[in-house]
Amino acid sequence: MTNAYRQNISIFLTAWLSLTLCGTTFAFDVIQALPAQPLFPGDNPSTAAKIELGKQLFFDPRLSIDGRFSCNVCHNLAAGGDDDGAVGRISQQRLNRSAPTLWNVSHMSTYYWDARARSLEEQATDHLLDPRVMAMGTADALVQRLNQIAGYRQAFAGAFNENVSGKGAISMPNIAKAIAAFERTLVTPNSAFDRYVKGDKKAISESAQRGFKLFDDTGCLSCHFGVNFAGPAPGPALNMGDGFYELFPNHLGSRYDEKYDLASDIGRYQVTLDERHKYMWRVPGLRNIELTAPYFHNGKVASLDEAVRIMALTQLKTEFNQQQVNDVVAFLKTLTGEIPSITLPRLPETEGLSLMVGNDSAAK
Amino acid sequence: MTNAYRQNISIFLTAWLSLTLCGTTFAFDVIQALPAQPLFPGDNPSTAAKIELGKQLFFDPRLSIDGRFSCNVCHNLAAGGDDDGAVGRISQQRLNRSAPTLWNVSHMSTYYWDARARSLEEQATDHLLDPRVMAMGTADALVQRLNQIAGYRQAFAGAFNENVSGKGAISMPNIAKAIAAFERTLVTPNSAFDRYVKGDKKAISESAQRGFKLFDDTGCLSCHFGVNFAGPAPGPALNMGDGFYELFPNHLGSRYDEKYDLASDIGRYQVTLDERHKYMWRVPGLRNIELTAPYFHNGKVASLDEAVRIMALTQLKTEFNQQQVNDVVAFLKTLTGEIPSITLPRLPETEGLSLMVGNDSAAK
Repeated sequence: MTNAYRQNISIFLTAWLSLTLCGTTFAFDVIQALPAQPLFPGDNPSTAAKIELGKQLFFDPRLSIDGRFSCNVCHNLAAGGDDDGAVGRISQQRLNRSAPTLWNVSHMSTYYWDARARSLEEQATDHLLDPRVMAMGTADALVQRLNQIAGYRQAFAGAFNENVSGKGAISMPNIAKAIAAFERTLVTPNSAFDRYVKGDKKAISESAQRGFKLFDDTGCLSCHFGVNFAGPAPGPALNMGDGFYELFPNHLGSRYDEKYDLASDIGRYQVTLDERHKYMWRVPGLRNIELTAPYFHNGKVASLDEAVRIMALTQLKTEFNQQQVNDVVAFLKTLTGEIPSITLPRLPETEGLSLMVGNDSAAK
Repeated sequence: MTNAYRQNISIFLTAWLSLTLCGTTFAFDVIQALPAQPLFPGDNPSTAAKIELGKQLFFDPRLSIDGRFSCNVCHNLAAGGDDDGAVGRISQQRLNRSAPTLWNVSHMSTYYWDARARSLEEQATDHLLDPRVMAMGTADALVQRLNQIAGYRQAFAGAFNENVSGKGAISMPNIAKAIAAFERTLVTPNSAFDRYVKGDKKAISESAQRGFKLFDDTGCLSCHFGVNFAGPAPGPALNMGDGFYELFPNHLGSRYDEKYDLASDIGRYQVTLDERHKYMWRVPGLRNIELTAPYFHNGKVASLDEAVRIMALTQLKTEFNQQQVNDVVAFLKTLTGEIPSITLPRLPETEGLSLMVGNDSAAK
């Protein structure tokens, strides 16, 4: 499937490059401005009630076993939609991968560094139950906990058109749908690059323009294309979750492999045990990349400059000089969009009761 | 000092009770409605710039050593201004006391369960450096980190009237002042009880009215009085931080001591090593108490009902029947105020750089 994409993309790129080289437009969807509206899949349509409920759940630490960690702790929406640490760490556990940003996540075609989830709903479910993350263990445990909170019983019934007094509105699929619906609203439109693509040629600096040309000429665009510069976005031409992933490091053995431990985690192979998936990874998006340091799946690279040097060498066997690094970084910084204002939700209370006392002790 | 307060309070109470028993007013400051405006100490006046900066710092996980924990993780402003866990836990460490709420904290006269801080500024400084909490270790380490963030250099210079290009605006005292200034804005006015105190006799139920009378008759009010029902508030009659604390358990040896491990932590004595301070604790405020389960310094009591039973017996040698418990809880729930809407701040970025990569590994 990856190869099929690559062939299509080659055709796209050829068509698109001939357009851009004539100095005309960016009409082709290899490069396109971020749509102001996120994508929603057909089986989880967006509603205001569902989004508001999802926001509560996203900020509610009671969705973790010991009541301490909300989604927002690692996917911090006051910052890059990720955390500042190298790799995720919840409670006593340390994950082996860096938390990816949630900004513009509706335009991703696959989820997790190893592309093991095909929808945001699947990703949310997995993270809530995973013993290394929110650690709820079973869907029943989570559903039972939320059913004790009157405000959630009402909100789920409202968002999913169930009878308030009836049971069943709070279910694992509905929890995941609400969280995913909220996450899909996290769009950052109107970056300088978007304005540039739409025709404002002064929206980005000359250095950034050189950087974009270099990004294209060197071959970065062959993987980092589309709305999020992360390969195909879900849409008519691609079923959501069909996935898109590439080899990293493409050229094993560079000086960076050891320096940043780039080759010890072999990526998607660990999910599929398919030999062809060794060192395969989801292509990460590049929007707001200046906000999401540190970089790479293991978060071992602190600066964007260094990340650019590494990618040039490991993927394309190219050494960038400092001016080239500066130019590409200048381009990448034009991908920072307008972060929406988010009002902290009010979490529904259990009114004079903690659901956590026993769990807190158990989770020590 | 505690005894001196108690004598004054006895006089106050006598005067106030004679007023209330005549069914007149609550004019006396033993009981008073929550002022809409918080108190600010003379050496840290409130300004919009300082409050906004403090809000950024409050929500910024980079103020903890591994860049993972903001103040808001344990003092969750989407909920009760505290966490749901029994006791605080940051990173690998587990604290031995429950995180207190920050709502209406400007009206407290002392800070920490053991009253060891005399101002919010002192409390913030202590928590940022404490190896069990934010674990920054030294003020220099924190100042050095924040000085690497251009947005903070500007914001501190603006909030503290320093020259932007000059050094020194980011200092431990200024960090603490900004955080404290934000925390003081966290007021929850206009509770049902406040409306009742102001004269709306239908603002609280008959059960709550009976509960309040019982709360008063039984003697709860002798410690839980004033704006926050936590003893003297800072003000003209009391220097900020003079402190107010009381004995708990007042009557050792009740059936609850063992059940909830109430007597193993001997409170303020551990700070002062003064024999008179054994089992002395800051009197916790009661506003929004229905939002701050679990209860007591060790957070071992899950429900407000049980907390009321425990207090009646351990403090006043009184057994409440279920109706009395219900009434007092009904009264306590009238103390829930209007929680202000809070917009998530945007945290200033380091633009393509992480300050955490090394620290994250070190903090494992």
